[in-house]
Amino acid sequence: MAGDEIEELVKYLARLPGLGPRSARRAVLTLMRRREALLDPLTAALAAARDTIKTCNICGNIDTQDPCAICTDPRRDGSVICVVEDVGDLWALERAKALNGRYHVLGGTLSALDGIGPEELNLAGLQARCKADGVREVILATNATVEGQTTAHYISDMLAPLSLTITRLAHGVPVGGELDYLDDGTLIAAMRSRRET
Amino acid sequence: MAGDEIEELVKYLARLPGLGPRSARRAVLTLMRRREALLDPLTAALAAARDTIKTCNICGNIDTQDPCAICTDPRRDGSVICVVEDVGDLWALERAKALNGRYHVLGGTLSALDGIGPEELNLAGLQARCKADGVREVILATNATVEGQTTAHYISDMLAPLSLTITRLAHGVPVGGELDYLDDGTLIAAMRSRRET
Repeated sequence: MAGDEIEELVKYLARLPGLGPRSARRAVLTLMRRREALLDPLTAALAAARDTIKTCNICGNIDTQDPCAICTDPRRDGSVICVVEDVGDLWALERAKALNGRYHVLGGTLSALDGIGPEELNLAGLQARCKADGVREVILATNATVEGQTTAHYISDMLAPLSLTITRLAHGVPVGGELDYLDDGTLIAAMRSRRET
Repeated sequence: MAGDEIEELVKYLARLPGLGPRSARRAVLTLMRRREALLDPLTAALAAARDTIKTCNICGNIDTQDPCAICTDPRRDGSVICVVEDVGDLWALERAKALNGRYHVLGGTLSALDGIGPEELNLAGLQARCKADGVREVILATNATVEGQTTAHYISDMLAPLSLTITRLAHGVPVGGELDYLDDGTLIAAMRSRRET
């Protein structure tokens, strides 16, 4: 390897999810080969992100403004709050245009193993928002994992005194999915929730 | 998605080898979550690389100095030049400490399909170096692919009039490799090059 600067760059790139030391080295070579098309704009984009991106103190989304564009958009239905684990989940629902309400990002799930209790998640903020006027429905859109479902249960109990409608995403066969490849749990859930056409 | 700055960053990260749009989005989230531990130092490392890394005009390696540290190291044997396709191959040989000579980076292989002829590769520089006093051996360490071997043949012919020793990396069973998983070509090459113990 040549030069501390290259080693530094490899070291930090290798910490990104999806890249290891080997692919970080390949990435550095690509960057050096394509200076004007890639290295310069990537450096500028990182610096711009570092200087402008904030975390929304209402919902936990990241954006160039605080409160974020979703929390301040008057066309969105403020009476519906969709609770997600992570900003990535929020982005996925936004890409799908699945919701016209607002969001609340927990920043993880409850996990006894990893020592993540209710205090570590953005739960006090959620409770405060739900107590405010006008919130009618809370959609629990945590992942369909054990931790996600445990967290949804906890939130459901926490919000029970507030007499809101609390809903969850439906389980079932993914659109385009083949039955033969699905696990038993999904098939049983899809069968139980079957609907008349 | 939130904010043009984030979309810009995702766009350029997704162009790195090993990352696509989905993993670039995950990388951006990781960067935003770990500002001080990752975003700031990565931005600084990229800027430092952009400002200090040059291509060595002798061998084609990248380094913070030109000529590079390998070309200027007096402890290295200047009479041996190892020809590689890419800076990544040079790094691999350096990591393995496989050579105490110098290198020559071609910047690719001959490829009729991709329209890469001898002019596109760093061949004139190689010929000039070989004509200079003191070069005794040229090791052709291009990859064991059709393009790599074609390129090695071409260079071998090009350097033939100069009465140098021209060698190639040996083919054989990789150290730790199991015969059962190797292709026929490797097994035949290993058998042909068998040696007395």
